[in-house]
Amino acid sequence: MKAFDFLLNKREEKPRSNGITMVLDKGLGLETAESLMNISGEYVDYLKFGWGTSIIHDEDIIKAKVEMYKSHDIIPYTGGTLFELAFMNDKLDEFFKRAHELGFPAIEISDGSINLAHEDKLDSIRKAKDEGFIVLSEVGKKDPNLDKELTLDERISFMQSELDAGSSLIIVEAREGGKNIGIFDASGNAKEDEIDYILDNFDGDKILWEAPNKDQQVFFILKLGNTVNLGNVSSDDITSLETLRQGLRGDTVGKIN
Amino acid sequence: MKAFDFLLNKREEKPRSNGITMVLDKGLGLETAESLMNISGEYVDYLKFGWGTSIIHDEDIIKAKVEMYKSHDIIPYTGGTLFELAFMNDKLDEFFKRAHELGFPAIEISDGSINLAHEDKLDSIRKAKDEGFIVLSEVGKKDPNLDKELTLDERISFMQSELDAGSSLIIVEAREGGKNIGIFDASGNAKEDEIDYILDNFDGDKILWEAPNKDQQVFFILKLGNTVNLGNVSSDDITSLETLRQGLRGDTVGKIN
Amino acid sequence: MKAFDFLLNKREEKPRSNGITMVLDKGLGLETAESLMNISGEYVDYLKFGWGTSIIHDEDIIKAKVEMYKSHDIIPYTGGTLFELAFMNDKLDEFFKRAHELGFPAIEISDGSINLAHEDKLDSIRKAKDEGFIVLSEVGKKDPNLDKELTLDERISFMQSELDAGSSLIIVEAREGGKNIGIFDASGNAKEDEIDYILDNFDGDKILWEAPNKDQQVFFILKLGNTVNLGNVSSDDITSLETLRQGLRGDTVGKIN
Repeated sequence: MKAFDFLLNKREEKPRSNGITMVLDKGLGLETAESLMNISGEYVDYLKFGWGTSIIHDEDIIKAKVEMYKSHDIIPYTGGTLFELAFMNDKLDEFFKRAHELGFPAIEISDGSINLAHEDKLDSIRKAKDEGFIVLSEVGKKDPNLDKELTLDERISFMQSELDAGSSLIIVEAREGGKNIGIFDASGNAKEDEIDYILDNFDGDKILWEAPNKDQQVFFILKLGNTVNLGNVSSDDITSLETLRQGLRGDTVGKIN
Repeated sequence: MKAFDFLLNKREEKPRSNGITMVLDKGLGLETAESLMNISGEYVDYLKFGWGTSIIHDEDIIKAKVEMYKSHDIIPYTGGTLFELAFMNDKLDEFFKRAHELGFPAIEISDGSINLAHEDKLDSIRKAKDEGFIVLSEVGKKDPNLDKELTLDERISFMQSELDAGSSLIIVEAREGGKNIGIFDASGNAKEDEIDYILDNFDGDKILWEAPNKDQQVFFILKLGNTVNLGNVSSDDITSLETLRQGLRGDTVGKIN
Repeated sequence: MKAFDFLLNKREEKPRSNGITMVLDKGLGLETAESLMNISGEYVDYLKFGWGTSIIHDEDIIKAKVEMYKSHDIIPYTGGTLFELAFMNDKLDEFFKRAHELGFPAIEISDGSINLAHEDKLDSIRKAKDEGFIVLSEVGKKDPNLDKELTLDERISFMQSELDAGSSLIIVEAREGGKNIGIFDASGNAKEDEIDYILDNFDGDKILWEAPNKDQQVFFILKLGNTVNLGNVSSDDITSLETLRQGLRGDTVGKIN
């Protein structure tokens, strides 16, 4: 039973079709991550081993973390940069094989840091699906100058073709910082008209908005409701985000339907 | 014995009548919190389970955390938003009952997120006291625009009546961010004249200043001495704050009497 | 074996002659620190018990942390402010004795917070060396106004004489914040011309650049290569920094030779 169950607000149980929370793991210790999941793991749907972090950790500890997250009904997955490095080094088969051995049920496919023909990205999504992975794919460039070259219509077209190729969720890039990137301006404020335009042209339940900062999370929840899918959430903020979703923190008290 | 005991500066032992440190717990894992208290728990007087966070955690883990904090002679308490949600939902009796069952010796009473007639706030303080709780009450609104409508004299009048109604400490709101709220401007700088005015008209030992950022902590310690009461301290900064108080960090070396 | 060993980039093994990472410990719990070292300790060369933090912790826990770090082939050392406090209080002998008893193999000698004749600083370096400590010394003042009074040529002259006196590494001050101090401007941007000038006149492998923020770490790695020595790295960012060094994070993918 929850500590103050009579004040809880109803939220869909896992596996959720929306209201998804994706958390960024930048290299947490196993025991520390487990302690955190024991208190708040039920509010985490996806757990990203950020960018290439898992490359430099021992396989034993990665396996143990993957298992631990799965035991909390969380889907752990490898960051997009890891796929990009594998692709760039012509090691895609080896990457899929190791990801399976390590226990990852899902992987992210992106082209934020490398040049990748979009057809190659779609092929990679199809191949990963065939290999049995859940696929999340990300649209956007990590370099703000390159990212700005993408028009909104191009973004939406990419999102749709990636969904058609087999992606379960399309991630809108915002990095760990959340500023001057994608739908956020240099101050980290969301460009509301761009978001509206995307949602007029794409199924919102299939979008995972990266929103690392609290103000961004509040913005999305107040604009799109607490069933919005949010990602790149800091491991420190899991509980905070869930209270925002449930209207249990000042910013959203009395504002959640 | 302390590792370098010959360089320690004297500080009052717990329970302290001033120089109080209140730490904000945003949802720490039990084991992680315990590891932190083992090294620095003696420097924590009050521990706030932030806003409505404890609503969404299992009662077993909340009980275990409350017991663990109490074993370090720390007073754990429920965040003000939790009271506000209970009041708003007409569940005050149930709230007091559960808080007792969970082992909380103290609660915070505030009206930062809801409209509450001040007489109702005072009644709630009296009722919580009658129920056997230590009461901390907070003056200020979480919405900066609403917060600005409060004049300084109104604030001081509220503080005094809440103290008279039974509050042990009056918290001056600054949230987790510490900017554009209460006595802090948009950059997080303290409004010194307002602080002076408050202290000319109210007993400083009864005020707990929320000061989440290091610069704010340094400011208060240099202005009011290391016996100032400070709150909303991040769990990462417990040791840092104590070294600031004792003149063992650059900002206050040689400046503490 | 590493989880994705076929994507690893070669880095020198410990003990490293360059490419050194120094991490700041602000008061981590023993178990939390151990959990972190189990996953990423191999990427940490030096571990600083920040400023005077270890003064206020129990000797048992400091001893246990020192031993734990050493078991991961990390060199733990006492922050510069601790030396300064000991010097200021005429307790240098007692300080050296306790540091030995606690198991510290290294200490930092600085004059960031106190006035210290440079000859006294050099004497202290020599004395610490004679006592068997590895010595790191820091050049720079913690107060930005005082820090600005140091000319570049003075800085370099101090660095050289401290190296000659026995320091193993010379730390360029940037504090925990990394703004408006030393070679960083008020926004935290590096002053490239000053860095060039220092490197024209001093052996770069003997410099440990404090670079607490990610942008600063990226800057140094792209400018000076991944064998640059970086310090005051947050314990949260150990894995991130190593991936930056190895070209496994977006900012440095394809940019590391």
